[in-house]
Amino acid sequence: MSLVVMGTVALDSLKTPHGIKEDLFGGSAAHFSMSARHFTNVHLSAVIGEDFPKKHISFLKSKKINTESLLIKSGKTFRWNGEYLAYDMNTAITLNTTLGVIVEFKPTVSARQKNIENVFLANYDPDIQLEFLSKLNKPNFIGMDTMNLWIDAKKQSVAKLMKKVHLVIVNDAEAQDFTSEKNILKAAKALLSYGPKMVIIKKGEHGGIFYSKNHLFALPAYPLEEVIDPTGAGDTFAGGVMGVLAQSKKINSKILIKALSYATILSSFNVQGFGMEMTKNLTIAQIEERMKVFREFFNY
Amino acid sequence: MSLVVMGTVALDSLKTPHGIKEDLFGGSAAHFSMSARHFTNVHLSAVIGEDFPKKHISFLKSKKINTESLLIKSGKTFRWNGEYLAYDMNTAITLNTTLGVIVEFKPTVSARQKNIENVFLANYDPDIQLEFLSKLNKPNFIGMDTMNLWIDAKKQSVAKLMKKVHLVIVNDAEAQDFTSEKNILKAAKALLSYGPKMVIIKKGEHGGIFYSKNHLFALPAYPLEEVIDPTGAGDTFAGGVMGVLAQSKKINSKILIKALSYATILSSFNVQGFGMEMTKNLTIAQIEERMKVFREFFNY
Repeated sequence: MSLVVMGTVALDSLKTPHGIKEDLFGGSAAHFSMSARHFTNVHLSAVIGEDFPKKHISFLKSKKINTESLLIKSGKTFRWNGEYLAYDMNTAITLNTTLGVIVEFKPTVSARQKNIENVFLANYDPDIQLEFLSKLNKPNFIGMDTMNLWIDAKKQSVAKLMKKVHLVIVNDAEAQDFTSEKNILKAAKALLSYGPKMVIIKKGEHGGIFYSKNHLFALPAYPLEEVIDPTGAGDTFAGGVMGVLAQSKKINSKILIKALSYATILSSFNVQGFGMEMTKNLTIAQIEERMKVFREFFNY
Repeated sequence: MSLVVMGTVALDSLKTPHGIKEDLFGGSAAHFSMSARHFTNVHLSAVIGEDFPKKHISFLKSKKINTESLLIKSGKTFRWNGEYLAYDMNTAITLNTTLGVIVEFKPTVSARQKNIENVFLANYDPDIQLEFLSKLNKPNFIGMDTMNLWIDAKKQSVAKLMKKVHLVIVNDAEAQDFTSEKNILKAAKALLSYGPKMVIIKKGEHGGIFYSKNHLFALPAYPLEEVIDPTGAGDTFAGGVMGVLAQSKKINSKILIKALSYATILSSFNVQGFGMEMTKNLTIAQIEERMKVFREFFNY
């Protein structure tokens, strides 16, 4: 089954202990697509400015990512300028944000994309996530992400959206913020009470948990000696989960564990390079090689 | 095969967000024994004062823990007074320590215990750990723990001990302190270069990693909604690892994963109550029930 992701396509400028990079190709929908593409047909819905380098669009097309709803509008592309400090590579510090065209224009889908079965609403204004959802003809499976900015500013809209989705994927700080529960298992239970059938709480280098009425899974991250740039790791994780789930008609524990495992491996590659350095040419063979090591952890 | 643990048997007074408790039966060797007893014959070597309640000794005996090297000396039992703060239940704050009899007397083994095949040197002065080891007749498998206090005060002795052991089990802060490596995989590699064949780095609620020349495993903690008292969780974990390994003549990846899994489950029970509240009557059936859930996480 196909998958459509709505989110940002952006130009990221980063300062990390490993160097400074300007105008990297990024954005939640871009990182998500680059991960989900390994498992299913991905359609990307986002808005970019006229300043956006054409080579990145050609690149997405070369990766078989459908860009017919990647809208080019008059104005500037969304830019994020962030920093990671050596002692906490898990936490991005926003130095500056240029919203550009995303203030005025909203992502949409083409007529023939309205029937796509699987949808992921990457981090965005929850009212726009809701509006995007309303344009689709009853998708089979809906996943969403959000961030503290929206939890603080528009909690009711985030809650309204949660009622309509099947899977909420957030990180620990977001889950704690939304639910006022410090314990992540309690936070997951609290999130479930808002309506989604499934919750994933990511803990960066410490892995994460999956929680639903019938299932609880905890998983470690893939151990790495060096994290170069965690930007997009969460979107890459979500892309892995949604991509694997989109392959399957039924969702059971084996499919869920498979989805979580591939998501873990995909995001481990993502953080080993700046932007898409490590994911741009990533092959299924490389993914399977690391999956083999990961599965070994639990081969009891 | 049998297992002997050398460490402390203590009386712990705790302040946690869940209450205040005085003179709980604790200590590294006691918590270790209460975990390892599920898998093998455990012999405990420690020194206590005349003030130590006899009921705790009877209790250990009732759990089939061999106490012939639990020496009662004239003076006070080692006491630890600690606190855990709500926002970081992973970190114990020492409020006060009364060393008592452990200043003057050293744990030892009886003549017939000298040939025990498996040894665990729980956290203690590394010079005493070394001395204890010298009393044994070539044990087959030696594990050790240490703490920041000894890493800071007697790093050379800790390093000397590492050369003589097969397995080092430490927490992340200790591994980082000893190796000056922030990344735990790098820290594990650095620890391995000191001589042990295997390294386990524990991350509390975030699980841990196992590292050796041929194996790398990452594992999550068992997710819990509430941590009441983490005192002894690390010793309980070590008891699970050493207990399972003592059952087996050969160490391979399956045995190691089994050991890490049981250790994870045992320590999850430990933290759910004060002191030994949850481990004192723990049955194999209860352990297996939780193991079944834990294994489900990876049943792919």
